[in-house]
Amino acid sequence: MLASLRLTKGFKSPCLWLSRANSTVSAAKAVSSAHCHTLLASTIAKSYIDEIQRGVKELGRKPRIVGLLANDDPAAQMYADWTSKTSTNLGFDYQLIKVDKDALEQAIVDVNKDDQIDGVMVYFPVFGGGQDQYLQQVLDKDKDVEGLNHTYVQNMYHNRRFLDEAETQKSILPCTPLANVKVLEYLGVYNPVLPYGNRLYGKTITVVNRSEIVGRPLASLLANDGATVFSVDANGIQKFTRGDGIKLNRHHVTDTDLTLKDVASQSDVLITGVPSSKYKFPTEYIRYGTVCVNFSSEKNFSPDVKEKASLYVPSIGKITIAMLLRNQLRLINNKQLRGKNASL
Amino acid sequence: MLASLRLTKGFKSPCLWLSRANSTVSAAKAVSSAHCHTLLASTIAKSYIDEIQRGVKELGRKPRIVGLLANDDPAAQMYADWTSKTSTNLGFDYQLIKVDKDALEQAIVDVNKDDQIDGVMVYFPVFGGGQDQYLQQVLDKDKDVEGLNHTYVQNMYHNRRFLDEAETQKSILPCTPLANVKVLEYLGVYNPVLPYGNRLYGKTITVVNRSEIVGRPLASLLANDGATVFSVDANGIQKFTRGDGIKLNRHHVTDTDLTLKDVASQSDVLITGVPSSKYKFPTEYIRYGTVCVNFSSEKNFSPDVKEKASLYVPSIGKITIAMLLRNQLRLINNKQLRGKNASL
Repeated sequence: MLASLRLTKGFKSPCLWLSRANSTVSAAKAVSSAHCHTLLASTIAKSYIDEIQRGVKELGRKPRIVGLLANDDPAAQMYADWTSKTSTNLGFDYQLIKVDKDALEQAIVDVNKDDQIDGVMVYFPVFGGGQDQYLQQVLDKDKDVEGLNHTYVQNMYHNRRFLDEAETQKSILPCTPLANVKVLEYLGVYNPVLPYGNRLYGKTITVVNRSEIVGRPLASLLANDGATVFSVDANGIQKFTRGDGIKLNRHHVTDTDLTLKDVASQSDVLITGVPSSKYKFPTEYIRYGTVCVNFSSEKNFSPDVKEKASLYVPSIGKITIAMLLRNQLRLINNKQLRGKNASL
Repeated sequence: MLASLRLTKGFKSPCLWLSRANSTVSAAKAVSSAHCHTLLASTIAKSYIDEIQRGVKELGRKPRIVGLLANDDPAAQMYADWTSKTSTNLGFDYQLIKVDKDALEQAIVDVNKDDQIDGVMVYFPVFGGGQDQYLQQVLDKDKDVEGLNHTYVQNMYHNRRFLDEAETQKSILPCTPLANVKVLEYLGVYNPVLPYGNRLYGKTITVVNRSEIVGRPLASLLANDGATVFSVDANGIQKFTRGDGIKLNRHHVTDTDLTLKDVASQSDVLITGVPSSKYKFPTEYIRYGTVCVNFSSEKNFSPDVKEKASLYVPSIGKITIAMLLRNQLRLINNKQLRGKNASL
C-alpha cells in the first residue's frame, strides 16, 4: 500500500491545498450516503470569520498584510488572489508584491523594517529545501503570519503555548496544521469536558503526510493535545504520543512496523494531505464511523468514503486562510502586550 | 475473567445503584491522578435539575407522585427517602405508601383510578421475576414514571421515539438506562455534530451487565443511537449494532466469542453495573484514555482506574432520580397533548 503513496517530503506550500477547494467540495456534494455527514470548510470557518471581524473592529484600524510572490506557480497566484479577496472583505489591507527570486531576501529585510506593515506571507516554495527554510527565518517573527519562525515551530514541537513566562502572549501556530486542529474541534473530536491541552486523550488519529510544513507539525500538535497519532509517509508509519496515560509533557516519536490497514482499523480520525491526484486512501481500510478530513487540494478520499465515514470534510482551505488572519490579529495583540509591559 | 462476574440476571431494582452513591463518590475523590477527570453525578444532574424546576414552574402546580413500597429492603427504603427529599425540593408532592405484598396489585389499581395522582413508582423487586413483570404492566402507562410499561420498553427496543404518528408525544425511557445516556451526552461521547439518532456512530462501548432492567435496555439504546456495543454478562459477550454503516433502523444482536480483554481494548467507553462488592473491572484491560462510568452502587472500578481513564463517573444515582422526575413531567405533557388533540 505504502508504495502507492507519493513521497510527501518535497511537496509544496499550503497554497496547493487551497487552490482546488471549491471543485473538491462540489464533487463531494454530488455523492449522497445515508449516514455520513459532509461538512464544508465555509461552515467550519464561519465562527472564526466572525471572531476576526470583531477583532478588526476592536483594533480600530486596517491591519496591513503584504504577500511576497517570487515564483511563477499559478497555484500560488491563485492563493494570493484568494487571500487578497478574503482579507479585504474582512477589513484588512492586503498588498501583493511580486519580486524576483534573487531580490526576495532583500524584500523581506525591507518589509521587516517598515512599521506600517503588520504581517507578511511569502509564497513558498521559491528555491525549495534549505534555502526556503533560511528565508523563513529572515522574516521578523512579529510579522510571521504563517507561524514558520523557528521560535514558533520549536514552541509547537515542545508543547509550549506561550511566548512569555507570564503566559499572556500566545505562540503562533502554522496555519494549515492549526486549521486541521480547528476542524477537529468543530467536529467534536476535541472533548471540551477534558482539560485544555488534553482534549484528545483517548483518541487515535492517522495523518497521511509527514511534510515539514504540515504533516509533522500536525501530528505533533495532535499528540501534544493527548492523541495517539500514526504519522504515515512513503517510508513507513511513526507513532506520536505523550506516552501511556499522557504522562509526558510533550510528544515523543517511535517507529512502527504497522501497515496503513492496521492503523486505519483503530483510528477514530483519518486526515489526508497527499498532493497527488493519483493517491486515494483505500476505502476498504476505513472503519465504519470514522471522521475523515482531507487537507490536500487533491481528493485523497474516493466518493465512497461516505459509505464508511460518520463525518467527512473534503477540504479545509477556507479555514486555513481564517487561521492566517487570526494569526495576524494575535501578532498585533502580542506586540501591544509587549508595548504595555515595556512601559510599566 | 467472566467467571468472576456475578450473574446479573436476577439482580435488584435501580434503587440498589443509588444507595451508596455518596460513599462511592467520596472514595473516588480521595484518589488523585494526573490526567483523569472525575465527574460527580451532582454536576451532571445540574442541567436536568434546572430543566425540571422550570417545568414545574410552567406547569403551575405540584405534580403528585406516589411511591408504593411492598418489600422490606433497606436499600428500597433509602431510595424512597431520597426520592422524597429530591422531589419535594424540586416542587413535587411525593407520598410513600407502604403496602403488604399481597395488597400491592390492588394498590396499583387504586392509584391508577385516582385522578389526583400524576405518577407512581413501585419499589421492585417484590416477588421477583415474572410476577414483578406482570405487576409492572398493571400500572397505568400514563403514570409509569420509571418507563417499565411494555409499550415504552418495546418502543425503546424498536427505536421508536414517539407514542403518536404525528411525533408530538415522546416515549418514556427507563430511568437508569436513560441516566447513562445523559452521562454520555454530558461527557461528549454523543457527538452533537452528527444528526440526532446517530450521534454515537463510530463509538465502541462495553456495558458490563445485561439485566432486563438496565443492561439490556442500555445496550439497545446505545446501539440504536449508532454505537457498536459489547454487552457482557456471566454467559458471554453479545454485540449490539445497527450493522455496517448503521444501515438498519434499529439494533440487532449477535453472539461473539470475544473476551472482556478483547472488547475493552477497542472500547471508547466502559460502563459497569455489577451489583457485587467483589466485582472489579480489571484495570489492566482498560485502554488509556477510556471513558469509564459505573452505575452500580458498588464500586466496580478499582481506584487505579484513574491511571487509565480520561473521564470517570463513579456513580450516577442523582442523574437517575432526575430522569424519574423528568419522565413525570413528560407524562403530564403527553397527557395534556392528548387532551388537546381529543378536543380538536
